[in-house]
Amino acid sequence: MATLRVPDAVPPPSEDCERLKEAFKGWGTDEKAIIWVLGHRNASQRKKIRETYQQLYKESLIDQLQSELSGDFGKAMILWTYDPPERDARLANEALKSRKKSITQLQIIVEIACANTPHHLMAVRQAYCSLFDCSLEEDIVSNVPLPVRKNFQFNCSLDIAQVLLGLVSSYRYDKELVDMNVANEEAAKLHDAIEKKRLDHGDVVWILSTRNIFQLKATFECYQQKYENNIYQDINSCGSDILVSVLRIVIWCIDSPEKHFAEVIRASIVGFGTDEDSLTRAIIARAEIDMMKIRAEYLNANKTSLDDAVIGDTSGYYLDFLMTLLGARM
Amino acid sequence: MATLRVPDAVPPPSEDCERLKEAFKGWGTDEKAIIWVLGHRNASQRKKIRETYQQLYKESLIDQLQSELSGDFGKAMILWTYDPPERDARLANEALKSRKKSITQLQIIVEIACANTPHHLMAVRQAYCSLFDCSLEEDIVSNVPLPVRKNFQFNCSLDIAQVLLGLVSSYRYDKELVDMNVANEEAAKLHDAIEKKRLDHGDVVWILSTRNIFQLKATFECYQQKYENNIYQDINSCGSDILVSVLRIVIWCIDSPEKHFAEVIRASIVGFGTDEDSLTRAIIARAEIDMMKIRAEYLNANKTSLDDAVIGDTSGYYLDFLMTLLGARM
Repeated sequence: MATLRVPDAVPPPSEDCERLKEAFKGWGTDEKAIIWVLGHRNASQRKKIRETYQQLYKESLIDQLQSELSGDFGKAMILWTYDPPERDARLANEALKSRKKSITQLQIIVEIACANTPHHLMAVRQAYCSLFDCSLEEDIVSNVPLPVRKNFQFNCSLDIAQVLLGLVSSYRYDKELVDMNVANEEAAKLHDAIEKKRLDHGDVVWILSTRNIFQLKATFECYQQKYENNIYQDINSCGSDILVSVLRIVIWCIDSPEKHFAEVIRASIVGFGTDEDSLTRAIIARAEIDMMKIRAEYLNANKTSLDDAVIGDTSGYYLDFLMTLLGARM
Repeated sequence: MATLRVPDAVPPPSEDCERLKEAFKGWGTDEKAIIWVLGHRNASQRKKIRETYQQLYKESLIDQLQSELSGDFGKAMILWTYDPPERDARLANEALKSRKKSITQLQIIVEIACANTPHHLMAVRQAYCSLFDCSLEEDIVSNVPLPVRKNFQFNCSLDIAQVLLGLVSSYRYDKELVDMNVANEEAAKLHDAIEKKRLDHGDVVWILSTRNIFQLKATFECYQQKYENNIYQDINSCGSDILVSVLRIVIWCIDSPEKHFAEVIRASIVGFGTDEDSLTRAIIARAEIDMMKIRAEYLNANKTSLDDAVIGDTSGYYLDFLMTLLGARM
């Protein structure tokens, strides 16, 4: 389900490091070589490369990439080279401290909390504490509710921070175990809250942030069977405040992360200009997880291929690197 | 600060396993040998012994102990032999599922959440999911508020479950970093809540469950300087409902776990009969952490030695084992 293509015979990390060192040499930088090496290694292989590079040359590979590369390509390559939990901790921190205050910043936190394994989320929280000398939870509370942009009306009584706190603090059971009674009961609770337009009810947050992913999928299915609409559409009908937007993202990230990320990519490309940060984030976060499904979903929803869309909106080494991660180039 | 005494030259795990296997042989059991081996090994050494035992004899050491030992001694030895996160996950589960519903059950959860490192708490949550097929948070919500005993009046509006959820979900920053402005500000928030007898204010739970331990100690100190009483005494004056009791335990576990556990041991021994479960839990949980400080605190508070108190209230192998963990026997 990943699009990342790793060669059958992966060279030893020391050999990869030599190639990278070679690529950094002299005035120019051999970007193609960097893509060739790092763009075809999975997270644990990249980790070994980082460690070996440090041992061999007594310098950090990340620092080296930072001094050699720039622009969207540089940003993307550096994000890709971090350990995934460290990458997500840095993305979360940047989102919370960002001067831009829009739904995108909240979305980044929701993605980390809901579209990953419980183990990954724990590792992100640990990395966050090590990197930023406080907990992710503390930074959520001191930076959210964000002073929102004018086009958002903040008219919900439940603090958005409370929702995000619930989501990032959860450690969900991670095996496939579903209790249909619970699914039925909690579908009814969710429906009740939606009908009364009381999305800020504590039950809603608790259910969405605590139950295991398989249980929640069953609950959403129950919801659809019992009430005919799907929960995503029903929540949409609750209005357009930030809480609605956040809960919509939560449900999508849980129920079908491939749909969520296909939409993130579409939104980053559509219209004038490109939102490179979102495009990069989506592809880097999912290239090793479910990018195949995201491609299929993208084609299905937009009647054009994701690859063509990326080719149409990006260029240079940035394009080369994204296409490599999308598995389109070897 | 630990009282556990590990010999300078620890035998290899295989040798320890042979001794244990020998102790299980035949009709009787050589309890003294079991105490001799396991009572002088730290958590990582016990882990290696468990693993080696499984490899050598194709059976679980814990199962073996369960079939050979009984009573308070057996319970204590088995708890001691588990990996600490697994032990605490089992204690938490037993507390939540217990038919006895008293403050002790809530206290066990608070101790695990507040008197341990953030890393240990995370490991307990992981172990809980693996062992019981649901998360600790789910079990808290389905089992708390406990139908409380008559002598407790449940008159607080904030759900006790919410407090426990906040505490177990936290992943506190674990280094010594204190912001005196935050300490001042949050001491005032806590004082305000106490003065208005609004301990159920969201801020109280958030501060106590999220801030790092050093920050909280500074906040409590600020509180004392500003308002002359200490926060523990002031909370006491808020009445006698369960929320007050729980928050008192929270503050003690954070501010001076040695005082808390000295009191747990005192309460388990005082009066007719002994609460062996609490006595065992306190000694086993802290023998490797801060039992030296607990002993000093016990002597200071009760004018008798902790060792004498344990000797007066227990007997047989159970006594031998506790005294071994207290460092009084080699």
